[in-house]
Amino acid sequence: MTKLGLGVLGVGRMGQRHAENIQSLVPGARLIAVADVDLDGARRLANALEIEHHHASIEALVERKDIDAVVIASPSRFHLSAVQAAAAAGKHIFCEKPLALTLEGVDQAILAAYEAKVLLQVGFMRRYDPAYAEAHKRIEAGEIGAPIIFRSIGRDREPPPLSFYESGSGTLFLDSSIHEFDLARWLMKDEVVDVHAFGGTLACPELSQFGELDAGTVNLRFSRGAIGNVESFRQSRYGYDIYTEVVGSKATLRIGYLQQTGFTILSGEGVTHDVVDHFLVRFAQAYLNELRDFVQSVLSDSPPKVTGDDARRALAIALAADRSCRDSCTVQVASQARTEPVRPVS
Amino acid sequence: MTKLGLGVLGVGRMGQRHAENIQSLVPGARLIAVADVDLDGARRLANALEIEHHHASIEALVERKDIDAVVIASPSRFHLSAVQAAAAAGKHIFCEKPLALTLEGVDQAILAAYEAKVLLQVGFMRRYDPAYAEAHKRIEAGEIGAPIIFRSIGRDREPPPLSFYESGSGTLFLDSSIHEFDLARWLMKDEVVDVHAFGGTLACPELSQFGELDAGTVNLRFSRGAIGNVESFRQSRYGYDIYTEVVGSKATLRIGYLQQTGFTILSGEGVTHDVVDHFLVRFAQAYLNELRDFVQSVLSDSPPKVTGDDARRALAIALAADRSCRDSCTVQVASQARTEPVRPVS
Amino acid sequence: MTKLGLGVLGVGRMGQRHAENIQSLVPGARLIAVADVDLDGARRLANALEIEHHHASIEALVERKDIDAVVIASPSRFHLSAVQAAAAAGKHIFCEKPLALTLEGVDQAILAAYEAKVLLQVGFMRRYDPAYAEAHKRIEAGEIGAPIIFRSIGRDREPPPLSFYESGSGTLFLDSSIHEFDLARWLMKDEVVDVHAFGGTLACPELSQFGELDAGTVNLRFSRGAIGNVESFRQSRYGYDIYTEVVGSKATLRIGYLQQTGFTILSGEGVTHDVVDHFLVRFAQAYLNELRDFVQSVLSDSPPKVTGDDARRALAIALAADRSCRDSCTVQVASQARTEPVRPVS
Amino acid sequence: MTKLGLGVLGVGRMGQRHAENIQSLVPGARLIAVADVDLDGARRLANALEIEHHHASIEALVERKDIDAVVIASPSRFHLSAVQAAAAAGKHIFCEKPLALTLEGVDQAILAAYEAKVLLQVGFMRRYDPAYAEAHKRIEAGEIGAPIIFRSIGRDREPPPLSFYESGSGTLFLDSSIHEFDLARWLMKDEVVDVHAFGGTLACPELSQFGELDAGTVNLRFSRGAIGNVESFRQSRYGYDIYTEVVGSKATLRIGYLQQTGFTILSGEGVTHDVVDHFLVRFAQAYLNELRDFVQSVLSDSPPKVTGDDARRALAIALAADRSCRDSCTVQVASQARTEPVRPVS
Repeated sequence: MTKLGLGVLGVGRMGQRHAENIQSLVPGARLIAVADVDLDGARRLANALEIEHHHASIEALVERKDIDAVVIASPSRFHLSAVQAAAAAGKHIFCEKPLALTLEGVDQAILAAYEAKVLLQVGFMRRYDPAYAEAHKRIEAGEIGAPIIFRSIGRDREPPPLSFYESGSGTLFLDSSIHEFDLARWLMKDEVVDVHAFGGTLACPELSQFGELDAGTVNLRFSRGAIGNVESFRQSRYGYDIYTEVVGSKATLRIGYLQQTGFTILSGEGVTHDVVDHFLVRFAQAYLNELRDFVQSVLSDSPPKVTGDDARRALAIALAADRSCRDSCTVQVASQARTEPVRPVS
Repeated sequence: MTKLGLGVLGVGRMGQRHAENIQSLVPGARLIAVADVDLDGARRLANALEIEHHHASIEALVERKDIDAVVIASPSRFHLSAVQAAAAAGKHIFCEKPLALTLEGVDQAILAAYEAKVLLQVGFMRRYDPAYAEAHKRIEAGEIGAPIIFRSIGRDREPPPLSFYESGSGTLFLDSSIHEFDLARWLMKDEVVDVHAFGGTLACPELSQFGELDAGTVNLRFSRGAIGNVESFRQSRYGYDIYTEVVGSKATLRIGYLQQTGFTILSGEGVTHDVVDHFLVRFAQAYLNELRDFVQSVLSDSPPKVTGDDARRALAIALAADRSCRDSCTVQVASQARTEPVRPVS
Repeated sequence: MTKLGLGVLGVGRMGQRHAENIQSLVPGARLIAVADVDLDGARRLANALEIEHHHASIEALVERKDIDAVVIASPSRFHLSAVQAAAAAGKHIFCEKPLALTLEGVDQAILAAYEAKVLLQVGFMRRYDPAYAEAHKRIEAGEIGAPIIFRSIGRDREPPPLSFYESGSGTLFLDSSIHEFDLARWLMKDEVVDVHAFGGTLACPELSQFGELDAGTVNLRFSRGAIGNVESFRQSRYGYDIYTEVVGSKATLRIGYLQQTGFTILSGEGVTHDVVDHFLVRFAQAYLNELRDFVQSVLSDSPPKVTGDDARRALAIALAADRSCRDSCTVQVASQARTEPVRPVS
Repeated sequence: MTKLGLGVLGVGRMGQRHAENIQSLVPGARLIAVADVDLDGARRLANALEIEHHHASIEALVERKDIDAVVIASPSRFHLSAVQAAAAAGKHIFCEKPLALTLEGVDQAILAAYEAKVLLQVGFMRRYDPAYAEAHKRIEAGEIGAPIIFRSIGRDREPPPLSFYESGSGTLFLDSSIHEFDLARWLMKDEVVDVHAFGGTLACPELSQFGELDAGTVNLRFSRGAIGNVESFRQSRYGYDIYTEVVGSKATLRIGYLQQTGFTILSGEGVTHDVVDHFLVRFAQAYLNELRDFVQSVLSDSPPKVTGDDARRALAIALAADRSCRDSCTVQVASQARTEPVRPVS
């Protein structure tokens, strides 16, 4: 069987993980090349993974005939142009979230993929985490009755490096809370229609220079009346803490855990265990599963599980949260979501 | 040593618990009489507790010379008149929350106690729970740094009986969330200035006839910039779940637990344990501690730990949440809190 | 209704708790007097509990006509003589474990109660703990199938004071493990036939002067083939940790928990919570329940739930463990248990 | 850099996992071939992993010049002959536990490796689990003081298939408890000198035909006086439960956890979560880490971390447990352990 040739754009933390996964753990895929404007970084990663090719741009990457699909893990503000370049070259696309920083950008990305007849999947990896996947399955099966309240918190141990903010990678709500917004839609099986957000730069004063928040709390109202809340925080200090609840009319689901290793020490000071410290640890399986699924979808000519429309709707909530926080008022989520054109099966 | 004579108004669940505690477990106190408009109920409780006296009204109760203080546990809308009657009779007062259903009512209650020179304590019992008390102590000691985010959920297993709603005992925010609002002020050591609430009648359609909510999510903004969220829900079905977090600049506190007995069963279906089912179980120690403290404050002529001003400020937040939920907008908390006159030491 | 008049012998920690419970929390009972060879201690407790009478001896206590039953909480080596004195005076008896320090002693105690036609209950309070009671109920209901493996650990935070050892209160296995041995019989619904024990004085060298162990591990074999293990340890330092498992052919039960207050702190050092520190905290409800049940049994002329025969069988296991540890061999449990004469219903 | 060529003997569950790990996740290693008497099975695995070679025997495997080291994962009773064949061919050896089924066999295996100057590592993978590794590190650092009590349970969800027993793969103590015995030595930093075991065929009557136990409890005494207990059980039904405690004079360590996914459901029946179901899940990281370490040791000409002597000492404990269980007496562990000859550094 011929394998799908993949290229990875961006050799930061996330791009590196995707490349490693493709190289070793994704059946049906072959890692062909990596690319980054930091050519040295690209070379180092290529060497480490023992692949032959590295490039300095998405253009060079998608020129390659042996590449069938690209994984886009560059800074968020470059996602759109990379998607457009990949689509123009007829490559299937896996793109990290957010797909673009504006609804217009998302529409252009979706359109580009549609016109090029390539598959476009977006990196909401939590849907592929075994615990979240189980939760979704139970809800589908009716175990909790009607979903009534959604609640999710996402806390990083430490904020991203300042270079992240300098690269224009999106606000707290666009970069971080967007994961919770996607979960909200997916687990509640409903759309968010109104949001209200309070936020602040409370723990990391160095973010003020970028006008960035480090903490936010977002109230949600869903179209069928359900309510919810999302918290995002950049500096918990104790660990990477992702915790979600879906309260239903019959039962409640929780997804989340803190302990990383299963090691505990009991002393006169109490009982102490460690905490998961990083998203690459917490969601290691999810990052792997999403790429496996992407590759399978391409190989089997199936539609992606996480679509451009999903990206658009989560972004719309994030943008509404941004505005609510700025104006201190309830904001309606832009409802004119365009449905993603279904990829024509050739 | 002469004991403080106490009377209890209201022989519902809460009044009964207070009466039992006083009868057996509160040093320095003696239960003299109970009163309720339901005279039979009052008689039954008096018999069960082997006390001689029961009455049909607060007026009859406070006429008694052998009563020094009253515990008010009647339906919320009768709190104010009971406080006024007790104060007029020169009795010290422990009153269940909410002290009254309007800010004006609270002001009248505070004034009545002030003019009568009696001590007035309000039943925010969670401050007396060992876990919450420990949290407060740690925050005072600076262990978490500056409090940044407050988060608290309160879920009942089942809603109160319909008679509760018929008795006009206050909305979801006034009756239930008000505990979280008090914790927010007390643990964050700050005042709430803005609130935003979404709510719904999502699980208990029978509440619609009263225009009552069964679920609410309230965003909070504190005067020094911190943010927070409170959720209240009337029908979790799985148990009584009270859970609070205070995220600080250095560390985070959690207060809460689910398991009631320490019994677990492990089978092919997974690991299962039980859940605390009722506030009288979860806060048994707190209900006891608050009355012990009330009695000690009276006996030692000290100011109460939970004051009428605390009641007023928590109510102001609840009223703002009510309005926010109705009007779907951010609402400022009424800031003109009157400080409670300190009880003159005779 | 006339109340059962109770006297308490021994005003140490345990006697004090029993006296407090009787004074306030045991329906149908009235605390008449306390007694201790330390007459000052007895007086102080009587004053604290506002009862009129205190005495220096069991003899003085049981002379009282207004006392119907006694609670024996003196040092273990005085249990037998106290039981005999109480029985001779026709008083019903609740006796702390161990009932006596030898099988002959237990037989004498049982005989004394039998001949005096008084009820004799032994203080294996864990049977009255809600979690253990639930476990027992589930086993009875067949939820775990056939019990196969028993496992129980009992760890004190700190060893008893040296005065405890000076008073001759029994070895590690007789004083501490005996609780686990009683659970083993009760939860497995079977008798222990063989034991093997290793032990040591590993943490508290000051116990060597008494020839006492601070740590022991006891293998058990039950008559129907099931196996088990019991660990006892005197100085965990982290808390009072009681943990039991019953592995069944269909499912497994666990009974135990560590956290005392539900307060947790999360910091860069990990997640830390407190630990239950003392048996009077962990088993507060059980101590209360057992006395309530004792009083009800006496009042209703019913047989006790924990009998002299239970005391005898648990002691036989403990004595076998003592010998096994000394001789480093498997030891058969003395099987000639005498069944307790059923108390004749008058 | 040239990679170490590896061959895997045995394509059962365990051999398959080792082969997959080597193929993708072990730096410095290249999977050359797999071998099994079941040649079809070997071919299927080779195909699945896209490697070219498969063989029907260890002899064929070790004839290959491109193979530098072998991983032995055949049934236990074939371990010794495979080790001897590999050593004779000058291949480095990673062998699953037990290294052999008798002390003489272990001695022969050690001698073979010694004379061939090849590295021999044994598959006690738990030492490579992050939680166990952390525990070991803390003990080394003195955090718990002197280790006093060791306690470890190992429960499989279901017993191995009957073919496992037919293949003569060792008793409960040799096949399963041996992991706990290795942990006992490693974590307590002491040798076991006496053991006592009770066992039974309590849950799986079909094992009686092989004279096999499904449950055992083993008391341990260490050379410096510490004590311990090990439980092994073949059929928990609820999951794969590995749990270890080391009680020290200052603090206590726990290693273990039950929850697999972090998904929880809360309903009127209680709070339920799932359970780790298999050792390949629980110890996925450990299996990977041990092979990475093995490869690094070979490449850097360093001695192995888990030696033939470790295998010998753990086996001696297991054999003593076998005999104790049979004879119902305390058994001394064969103390004449031969120290493994250090591999000469060329």
